[in-house]
Amino acid sequence: MSEVKSKAEKARAAATALNRMTTEQKNEALQLMADHLRKHQADLIAANQEDLERGKAQGISPSLLDRLALNPQRIESIAEGLEQIISLPDPIGDVLDDFERPNGLKISKIRVPLGVIGIVYEARPNVTVDAAGLCLKAGNTVVLRGGSSALSSNRKIVEVLHEALEASSLPADAIQLIESADRSSVDEMLKLNGLLDVIIPRGGQALIRNVVENATVPVIETGAGICHTYIDETADGAMAEAIAVNAKVQRPSVCNSMETLLVDSRFAAGHLGSLADRLRQEKVEIRGCERTRELVPWAVPVTEQDYATEYNDYILNVKIVDTLDEALDHISRYGTKHSECIVTENAGHAKRFLQEVDAAAVYHNASTRFTDGFEFGFGAEIGISTQKLHARGPMGLPALTSTKYVIHGSGQIRG
Amino acid sequence: MSEVKSKAEKARAAATALNRMTTEQKNEALQLMADHLRKHQADLIAANQEDLERGKAQGISPSLLDRLALNPQRIESIAEGLEQIISLPDPIGDVLDDFERPNGLKISKIRVPLGVIGIVYEARPNVTVDAAGLCLKAGNTVVLRGGSSALSSNRKIVEVLHEALEASSLPADAIQLIESADRSSVDEMLKLNGLLDVIIPRGGQALIRNVVENATVPVIETGAGICHTYIDETADGAMAEAIAVNAKVQRPSVCNSMETLLVDSRFAAGHLGSLADRLRQEKVEIRGCERTRELVPWAVPVTEQDYATEYNDYILNVKIVDTLDEALDHISRYGTKHSECIVTENAGHAKRFLQEVDAAAVYHNASTRFTDGFEFGFGAEIGISTQKLHARGPMGLPALTSTKYVIHGSGQIRG
Repeated sequence: MSEVKSKAEKARAAATALNRMTTEQKNEALQLMADHLRKHQADLIAANQEDLERGKAQGISPSLLDRLALNPQRIESIAEGLEQIISLPDPIGDVLDDFERPNGLKISKIRVPLGVIGIVYEARPNVTVDAAGLCLKAGNTVVLRGGSSALSSNRKIVEVLHEALEASSLPADAIQLIESADRSSVDEMLKLNGLLDVIIPRGGQALIRNVVENATVPVIETGAGICHTYIDETADGAMAEAIAVNAKVQRPSVCNSMETLLVDSRFAAGHLGSLADRLRQEKVEIRGCERTRELVPWAVPVTEQDYATEYNDYILNVKIVDTLDEALDHISRYGTKHSECIVTENAGHAKRFLQEVDAAAVYHNASTRFTDGFEFGFGAEIGISTQKLHARGPMGLPALTSTKYVIHGSGQIRG
Repeated sequence: MSEVKSKAEKARAAATALNRMTTEQKNEALQLMADHLRKHQADLIAANQEDLERGKAQGISPSLLDRLALNPQRIESIAEGLEQIISLPDPIGDVLDDFERPNGLKISKIRVPLGVIGIVYEARPNVTVDAAGLCLKAGNTVVLRGGSSALSSNRKIVEVLHEALEASSLPADAIQLIESADRSSVDEMLKLNGLLDVIIPRGGQALIRNVVENATVPVIETGAGICHTYIDETADGAMAEAIAVNAKVQRPSVCNSMETLLVDSRFAAGHLGSLADRLRQEKVEIRGCERTRELVPWAVPVTEQDYATEYNDYILNVKIVDTLDEALDHISRYGTKHSECIVTENAGHAKRFLQEVDAAAVYHNASTRFTDGFEFGFGAEIGISTQKLHARGPMGLPALTSTKYVIHGSGQIRG
């Protein structure tokens, strides 16, 4: 039997036992996981060093090396992340609905674990711990398939987590790591209907595309964000500038940062020059439509392809529009249904924008950078869903659960 | 452009306009649809006659011909179904959550339509109207792909529905029927990411398998039901007999009927003979394990394959078990996570069964035949989900919706 199948079967078998665990038992295991990670700090850093050296030898980029690196501070923050999960309410067993039928049947809709969750992700080793912790707290076992560049780190992390689970009431098999670096191990996971209940991809566009296009197991799509900010005619100038700059430069590498700024032509006439100067100070390259380039001569010409690109970088498309409808059409055409913002003092325009834009999160007068489980107060986040089924937007613990109807009768039969 | 793509694009374009419609406008359209179906009763029956004649010529089975047939009574009941949908509360716009963050951001989670729903189904023409009505009420446009055996009926039905929509405020393009009988039209629908938001298959196992295995668009899996009834040692004899007989024979052709009866050996010793006689009177063929055949000599031997078969017919597997765990193991191995029942007076056994069995609906002392949107009081049903994402069990209108976070700020930026 392949590594993938045999580990998925172990996770499946452990799911029933995990489902029987109390909140206290799960929290105790999470605390042991945090404690053991702290205790093995030196081992983790040594294993991580192997990944970093291999990465350097293979010439991977400094920014990827940075994401891959573990140090005492990062290990502490990973352990604190587990402690934060302990503090979250356990969603399992929540009664979501409860009613009695005229025939006396008592029907309850109860939150239950999804079962076995597959996570396919890239370089950052902290995802290994975060994802395992969140899945366990929601009563799920997990099959992790991280990037090959972090394999030594992930192997050591999971070894430590297994040691913690052995000391707990939870089945150690609840966390499985696929070690095969071969791409075929991902392909195999995607088809494990019956063993995996859902797959969540976390990473770049190519990784997510591969999962969405090839999985027969249900998928929660996460990630891609071509987010827009539309500055309406009546926007407050200072507010619009602050929101646009924040949405672009506060952290350009993430999915909720802005890629295209749409500006009403009347607002642009008075304010675009100074806003562009401010962005230039922040080292942002502007790619502008023709009308933008009349007001911002140093902007380079924008292309259709640019409008459809998630830069995750210090690059911004700027387009001048004459109406709200033009802005809505542009967003409908190029947006990825992630996060979209209107800056306006016109309540009617705000209302139309919030209703008509089809996205996980729509903002009036606030930066798109807030689309995040922590910023929303969920206390944790397994990712940001950009699909419409099951969960949409930042996903906290309830997104890792399903439901079950429990029916109590006294001999009812159907007539 | 292909028929499938061009119709999906029309449905996509109509989705925005539909999203703006009020509950009153949607209900008015549903009433017009019901009225027009009644008015065109003779045309509908004439079109259906073509399907029936072609079906007879092709030698399709009498039971399929029966499911395909329209008559005045069935058309009236289809129209009444639309009127029932009018009476259901409109889920769109419901505020599911509403909170303010310390930074002053006001976040609401609002119910919104999914957008464009694809339905792939088989012979029964009433599904064309039911599905269109439910999708529209939940603010979705719909792309219908019915079986080729009902094509004349479906074409006429959709012509009548379009006439009704023309007289309403809703966009007529909200309902699209794929007329191509070619299997490739289904395959094309399954890959229309960006145009279709979800696909719901309704029909037999082969149809559902094809959709689940080949779709890149998110799918809500419905249908297959290998349902078990477990009669525990302490079951009330008369209640157990009534529930078992009802679960098997009240309507064997549907997914929530029982395929395998598991009987505790001590209960079997006292009651299985008479229960089997009762089933024989109802023309049920029993396929039994060896111990069953000692008590029921006329039972034929059951095979592994039988345990894994959804008969949808007057055939029942019977297996004697010695413990609750043995019953749980059997269900975990052969069940399809649809509906499972325990008949017992032992509260501890009931509790374990209800918690440990992983299924959409778990019953204590009631027939599995109740897993149904109408029986649950949802007033309608688009199908029964057997997957764990998004919706599980009978799906009413809320299963046809998504959510959106709407965020009101006053210039907040992320620090």
